[in-house]
Amino acid sequence: MSTEGPVLVVGAGLLGTSIALALRRRGVDVALRDVNPENLRIASGLGAANVEDGAVEPRLVVVAVPPDLLGEQVAAALRDTDAVVTDVGSVKSAPLGVVRALTPKHVGRYVGSHPMAGSERSGPFAASASLFDGRPWAVTPHDAASPEAVAQVIELARLCGATPVTFSPEEHDQAVARTSHLPHLLAAVAAGRLTDAPREHLALSGQGVRDVTRVAAGDPELWQQIVSANTDALTVLLLEVRDDVDALLGALADGDRSRLGVVLDRGVAGTAVIPAKHGGPSRAETTVFVAVPDHPGELARLLADIGEIGVNVEDLRIDHDPGREYGLVELSVASDHVDHLLASLDDRGWTAHR
Amino acid sequence: MSTEGPVLVVGAGLLGTSIALALRRRGVDVALRDVNPENLRIASGLGAANVEDGAVEPRLVVVAVPPDLLGEQVAAALRDTDAVVTDVGSVKSAPLGVVRALTPKHVGRYVGSHPMAGSERSGPFAASASLFDGRPWAVTPHDAASPEAVAQVIELARLCGATPVTFSPEEHDQAVARTSHLPHLLAAVAAGRLTDAPREHLALSGQGVRDVTRVAAGDPELWQQIVSANTDALTVLLLEVRDDVDALLGALADGDRSRLGVVLDRGVAGTAVIPAKHGGPSRAETTVFVAVPDHPGELARLLADIGEIGVNVEDLRIDHDPGREYGLVELSVASDHVDHLLASLDDRGWTAHR
Repeated sequence: MSTEGPVLVVGAGLLGTSIALALRRRGVDVALRDVNPENLRIASGLGAANVEDGAVEPRLVVVAVPPDLLGEQVAAALRDTDAVVTDVGSVKSAPLGVVRALTPKHVGRYVGSHPMAGSERSGPFAASASLFDGRPWAVTPHDAASPEAVAQVIELARLCGATPVTFSPEEHDQAVARTSHLPHLLAAVAAGRLTDAPREHLALSGQGVRDVTRVAAGDPELWQQIVSANTDALTVLLLEVRDDVDALLGALADGDRSRLGVVLDRGVAGTAVIPAKHGGPSRAETTVFVAVPDHPGELARLLADIGEIGVNVEDLRIDHDPGREYGLVELSVASDHVDHLLASLDDRGWTAHR
Repeated sequence: MSTEGPVLVVGAGLLGTSIALALRRRGVDVALRDVNPENLRIASGLGAANVEDGAVEPRLVVVAVPPDLLGEQVAAALRDTDAVVTDVGSVKSAPLGVVRALTPKHVGRYVGSHPMAGSERSGPFAASASLFDGRPWAVTPHDAASPEAVAQVIELARLCGATPVTFSPEEHDQAVARTSHLPHLLAAVAAGRLTDAPREHLALSGQGVRDVTRVAAGDPELWQQIVSANTDALTVLLLEVRDDVDALLGALADGDRSRLGVVLDRGVAGTAVIPAKHGGPSRAETTVFVAVPDHPGELARLLADIGEIGVNVEDLRIDHDPGREYGLVELSVASDHVDHLLASLDDRGWTAHR
């Protein structure tokens, strides 16, 4: 395996072009390939490549094509080069199986990976060198993977600004089934029930249903491919979901509150095990609501005041009032700063409450 | 029925105390009642009441007690006074049934209502006069409701700053089953699957699973009562959910992509029918990501720059990077302003991408 030469990125979509841009930002030589000449032209125009594809033997090939094509494209790259090959698909076991079947003797040079960024947009126009900054990037070595190949893929994640996290392909697929694919399917199911509703009923939609269903707007063709590639892990979880739905139906039919409580309590426990965004221990936060006129500059004035008050904002949402000219801004701040913040905002003329 | 006299609020929790404060803000006389003297002391300390309970006959009684107690408390208020009586519970048909059974001859003075605000916090300390400002407030007259009673409850919603929306009790319950109760249950089911996961798998949690599961953190005791009171509407929807889950399991078992596609496509359609936050027609919005140092004042500087650039921010989220000293800020802006915004932010030294 060569240790010099450029990185060849196959597929100049959102992820491929972003990886190329991130590598160019670090001075790494990059060649780009795509069956669509328009994608290639756009990505090259953004400065994503500096080496002609085919001019030099690559040291690393990054396959960034749709899930259905991953296995055969990885296998082709292994046959055509001596490079380490990785991919950036959302599912890892199925493409590995295809690669093993197609090129068993080269599979040691393949190590899959999965950057946790960017799935609801698409195309090279949406690409960015900073797409992966600070994001987790799963690296998924299989039993026969060479240590050098693993090291090169971990190095790729680091060069792109991400934080590499190592899993076996099976563990990865089980993890994303729970943390991404099942939530997506349940969001789609919840959103699907809204399509039958009389439109006037939807006037009662609040922030809750917006949050639960938001991801269901993602590209259904892409999600068909992702879900189909993670059948085993998702089937286990969907059977558990069916048990929960049956338990809820039974509890409603029997008026059995304790069975309702089991599902609701487990939901509370589930929200508590998601790691804090900072990655560190979860801090107690409190939500504060502030009324803000709905004009450019007003939100900035609020944030400037909060900056002067000296309180850090952990998260922020804007909830526009349906019938009014201002929005409600939800601020998450450390709970022990809330009283000080509310009093100080009141002094500065803002209408705020917790 | 008297048309003078104070409003009596029964239950000095979050909603009751907030209604009392909102009415006092408008100069309306308010008396307050609670079985818990501590709640009453706190609410009175906040200025929520100016009339001694029992000193004057009320013209309107607002029952703001937990769902399980609603029906009997409304019936007691109808028997004990000549006032119009309303409640602010999340479900409307079940308490109406209790009231009809307990005091059939007084039911015309009862009109249920449901302000769409504030369910994940509790207690009078969290109360605010502005809690209902600009929020929808469902008013749910039944067949035997007197027109004067309906008018008084609509007036209550207006006095509290909310926008009244009228539904029959059954329509209301069907609407919130879709827009609130089912999303809550599916969020709990999705979150529940996380409790079985090895902790290291949860490192792959992104914004998607956080959004889908957020509401599942709500008080499970309260939600048991809400769900139990809306059995009929929820049973219909949960049977449809079970059909969807069976369809997904069948599609995965058979490798049948088109059946997956039906569920995913309906999910996309469902996200599109939720009204825009402005209440007007949904506008095309695009998400822009900006890296912002994680210090007080930096977010204000960004928003000030955007204000000067002249682009209105429709929504904003902060995604803290796990391993870094800055956050990624997601801005939603009108799609036709994105190119201008990105170029202008770049000019001002921000790292931004779509």
